[in-house]
Amino acid sequence: MKRILIDCDPGIDDALAITLAHGSSQVEIIGITTVGGNVSLAKTTENALRLREFLGFPEVPVVPGSAGALLRPRIDAAEVHGDSGLGQVRLPAPTLPPADGHAVDFIIDTLASAPGEISLVAIGPLTNVALAVRKEPRIVDWAREFVILGGSYTRGNYSPAAEFNIVADPEAAAIVFAAGWTVTMIGLDVSRTALATTAVVDRMRQMGRLGADLLVPCAEFYGMVTADDGPAIHDACAIAYLIDPTLIEIQQAVVEVETAGRFTSGMTVVDFHLRDRAPNALVGTAIDTRRFWDLMLGAYERIAATMA
Amino acid sequence: MKRILIDCDPGIDDALAITLAHGSSQVEIIGITTVGGNVSLAKTTENALRLREFLGFPEVPVVPGSAGALLRPRIDAAEVHGDSGLGQVRLPAPTLPPADGHAVDFIIDTLASAPGEISLVAIGPLTNVALAVRKEPRIVDWAREFVILGGSYTRGNYSPAAEFNIVADPEAAAIVFAAGWTVTMIGLDVSRTALATTAVVDRMRQMGRLGADLLVPCAEFYGMVTADDGPAIHDACAIAYLIDPTLIEIQQAVVEVETAGRFTSGMTVVDFHLRDRAPNALVGTAIDTRRFWDLMLGAYERIAATMA
Amino acid sequence: MKRILIDCDPGIDDALAITLAHGSSQVEIIGITTVGGNVSLAKTTENALRLREFLGFPEVPVVPGSAGALLRPRIDAAEVHGDSGLGQVRLPAPTLPPADGHAVDFIIDTLASAPGEISLVAIGPLTNVALAVRKEPRIVDWAREFVILGGSYTRGNYSPAAEFNIVADPEAAAIVFAAGWTVTMIGLDVSRTALATTAVVDRMRQMGRLGADLLVPCAEFYGMVTADDGPAIHDACAIAYLIDPTLIEIQQAVVEVETAGRFTSGMTVVDFHLRDRAPNALVGTAIDTRRFWDLMLGAYERIAATMA
Amino acid sequence: MKRILIDCDPGIDDALAITLAHGSSQVEIIGITTVGGNVSLAKTTENALRLREFLGFPEVPVVPGSAGALLRPRIDAAEVHGDSGLGQVRLPAPTLPPADGHAVDFIIDTLASAPGEISLVAIGPLTNVALAVRKEPRIVDWAREFVILGGSYTRGNYSPAAEFNIVADPEAAAIVFAAGWTVTMIGLDVSRTALATTAVVDRMRQMGRLGADLLVPCAEFYGMVTADDGPAIHDACAIAYLIDPTLIEIQQAVVEVETAGRFTSGMTVVDFHLRDRAPNALVGTAIDTRRFWDLMLGAYERIAATMA
Repeated sequence: MKRILIDCDPGIDDALAITLAHGSSQVEIIGITTVGGNVSLAKTTENALRLREFLGFPEVPVVPGSAGALLRPRIDAAEVHGDSGLGQVRLPAPTLPPADGHAVDFIIDTLASAPGEISLVAIGPLTNVALAVRKEPRIVDWAREFVILGGSYTRGNYSPAAEFNIVADPEAAAIVFAAGWTVTMIGLDVSRTALATTAVVDRMRQMGRLGADLLVPCAEFYGMVTADDGPAIHDACAIAYLIDPTLIEIQQAVVEVETAGRFTSGMTVVDFHLRDRAPNALVGTAIDTRRFWDLMLGAYERIAATMA
Repeated sequence: MKRILIDCDPGIDDALAITLAHGSSQVEIIGITTVGGNVSLAKTTENALRLREFLGFPEVPVVPGSAGALLRPRIDAAEVHGDSGLGQVRLPAPTLPPADGHAVDFIIDTLASAPGEISLVAIGPLTNVALAVRKEPRIVDWAREFVILGGSYTRGNYSPAAEFNIVADPEAAAIVFAAGWTVTMIGLDVSRTALATTAVVDRMRQMGRLGADLLVPCAEFYGMVTADDGPAIHDACAIAYLIDPTLIEIQQAVVEVETAGRFTSGMTVVDFHLRDRAPNALVGTAIDTRRFWDLMLGAYERIAATMA
Repeated sequence: MKRILIDCDPGIDDALAITLAHGSSQVEIIGITTVGGNVSLAKTTENALRLREFLGFPEVPVVPGSAGALLRPRIDAAEVHGDSGLGQVRLPAPTLPPADGHAVDFIIDTLASAPGEISLVAIGPLTNVALAVRKEPRIVDWAREFVILGGSYTRGNYSPAAEFNIVADPEAAAIVFAAGWTVTMIGLDVSRTALATTAVVDRMRQMGRLGADLLVPCAEFYGMVTADDGPAIHDACAIAYLIDPTLIEIQQAVVEVETAGRFTSGMTVVDFHLRDRAPNALVGTAIDTRRFWDLMLGAYERIAATMA
Repeated sequence: MKRILIDCDPGIDDALAITLAHGSSQVEIIGITTVGGNVSLAKTTENALRLREFLGFPEVPVVPGSAGALLRPRIDAAEVHGDSGLGQVRLPAPTLPPADGHAVDFIIDTLASAPGEISLVAIGPLTNVALAVRKEPRIVDWAREFVILGGSYTRGNYSPAAEFNIVADPEAAAIVFAAGWTVTMIGLDVSRTALATTAVVDRMRQMGRLGADLLVPCAEFYGMVTADDGPAIHDACAIAYLIDPTLIEIQQAVVEVETAGRFTSGMTVVDFHLRDRAPNALVGTAIDTRRFWDLMLGAYERIAATMA
């Protein structure tokens, strides 16, 4: 059972990703740290707490972290995720508070507690991870693997050049990619093909309270759903990779994060031609969408069964 | 008959583009200006002169222009085009000299001579056009249309972010895109699909001296030729668009040229979401490759027939 | 008699600088080219034409050039120089037009006509000179010397970092400083000490029509005049250097022009520590203000005598 | 008695600054945090430990922090401070270790323990302070005051534009200046005038072991000492300001840190013209050098007396 620490900013696709992780028999969530991103830190933390109790893993610590980017004004994606960050989803208010302490220390201490064993996955802006790397550089050796949902090697979503999680804190991303570990970058090139179609949502509808209260409103709020098309469930791709790396094709690359551009700040510049350089990233290039949805829906059904 | 002024840096694909223009019954080359780019200005000018006599239009002026970029050290693409700029092609030395004067003035004077009538097409770095725009801003109104081969809205070829013609002089490109006209940008997204396959090269082989001395060595030097694949004849796409705009799908966009990025300078940042902004470009998104090659080979055969 | 070509944007201090040049027995103005700067090109050209006739050298060509910067939106200094560019000065309308052609070609042709003999001095934004350098790189060898009024090695005037003439077109300045010649840079560090005090203005008052119609209103519009203090007559320092280089202490330096900074674009970064680098500039560090004003007032009196 | 927390990178002038603070009856050092800067973090920490025991305040915690800058490769100033960071000074090896924990947490916890009471002074690169601000933004309200030695509003020392402490981590400095507090910036404009002349060093020579083992070798290693001139004891100026603010003239300003420039990164761009902006800094503009040296030598003599 792979133990994973999720740094996130829920966020609709974060919610669907956390649900996948919780429903998987292959991974165990050992902590959730939050960061300002899709919505404010207060809301991402609140959403993480609600999800934790609704899904039923109250023993897992939720630890709040950074409210904004290292150097830049905060941007958000409330127009995509709704004011609350979870669209029309209305989960009960949490009865348990977040853990004491700061996400940065929780990341450091957790990875330090079992070097080589714990996987770190970041599905929001990289502020917490960057601060952790700077405070304790050895975490890059302690993490079993480090996977992000973020970036793109073709086009962005926040701007023509940049993806939201990276552009929300370009300097943090630059720190993280240069930290000395290999970043597994699952970006828009992959996640844009993992679409929740009508068939997918129909399956979700049959999942009782989990479907009615979480999955279906997530999918529906997030975008138009048609037979061939639907919203991309970005963050879940990173979790899916942790569960089953064979789902996603990856390729070695040198990834640089642009921080100085006038129109390109926050772009992940992905060079697959290594020449004599050591790669700093494994970049996702394709996902097996059929198997991805099998994995997703299977995990969701496991949870739904327990909630009946 | 559309009159066109070609600013170029031959260059193998420039040669194939000029040959297309000369062989077309729809356009008339009224001047060729040269710029340092694929190889040095001395070589691009020499190559233009050789082509002019080999193809048989000695009455058309060839006017040299800028040797290097506005602000940056000169880069070249000699590893793609060979030391001479024309690979293994060995055309006879020219007997006629270039015209007096400077490309910048020739562009201005030519466009001024017939406002609204002459099409300007640039298939090299944009240094000459930028200087012309700055010296005589009214050329943006005088040009009937302005088409470039350059840029990309996905990935570059010189770097992950940048295409050669733009990165060779990013500031010139920035000037040109901001000059007040609509730039028709045919970029790598289009030109990378216009491949000289085995079937294409076989047709070239049957074109006598034109095929043997120019077309075939161009195609072969430029890259591996297989049944399904072969080199992209970039510059010819811009000429093909001038001859028959229906060959290429275009879309309105706001294009900005990054000049400040650390890893992205020379990138064309193409935003198809205009919101409330006026577009400054028409960007090619797809080419009908079958009809493109029909046009190409038809034009080449017309010339081949005259050279027999 | 040193022959000088003045590129300028009159401009109050330009007017006082041109008057100095005309009144000096050591230099001969052989042409004036204009550039948009302190006010628009139309106004700087009009002001040059008015000055030419008022001062009485109608045989010297005035040639208009660039209206704006290479890459950036035009800025001006109308709040310093007044809407007209000459404050309250009201010289008669010109009876003679500007010369045909463009400043860029006039600069190139003039320097080409007598290599090694003609001094070029630029006291406005460097757009014209940059375009001339790019169109005909050999002018850097043809100019006898090249002197500018612009930049600073301590603090700016347009911003904390940048002086107006440089920040008005940083890319042009970058081209000019990197062109291969030695730029004599007389900047704010020098010109800020060349102040028109009460004593100076009193002398101007005694200069008849020249004083009443030009010099005094220039000095008074330009700033508060007190016994110890008064406006800095920047541009005149560059002309003074051409007339008598012993007036100004200079020091070798490597000067780079910042074009990428967020808060520092247009700054001249002056490094006096050459280490192993060849200097590209001679930078003014101090001026003998007593002798400067002797020179200024002497020249003005010569003209005033002819206008009696 | 003002309680101060010193973030530093000893460093020769750091050593003289810490000695001043220890010898002053007006301030009490309640902690020392270290950062990589003049030399490596290992060495700056070692030097702080040696100084602590040599000067005799073993009860004050020394807490190591960041080894390098947030985003950039580490630079150092070993050519100024010697390989050890303390020139020829040879203090005994420490017998006590540094405190557990990280400087960032020590800064946060210390300021949190007595909001409004403790002064924070940073005389090295600002990495620790920036990380503390990002981890706990409320420290900007908790600090009684925040004083740095760094920056310049005229010219730098590491480069023509930038001072060492700022250029060593420009992004950290940008974070710190934008954090919402008022930064009292004592920069090179002030510190360059606080010179250890022959007279000063002669006084130091009479200070027994303190003079012989620390003060005199510091001053002598650091530069040529003459009657009129000598090394600038930069960091001590910031401590002197904390002890007696009347020593230094200050002026309100908006300070921005350039992070994007090609030649100006790490420059503090100081605008004294506030217009409608709120100042974020108080910038030192002059120091009373006579009273500064009285303060310095008085404090040193107090310590020397205790070491006899």
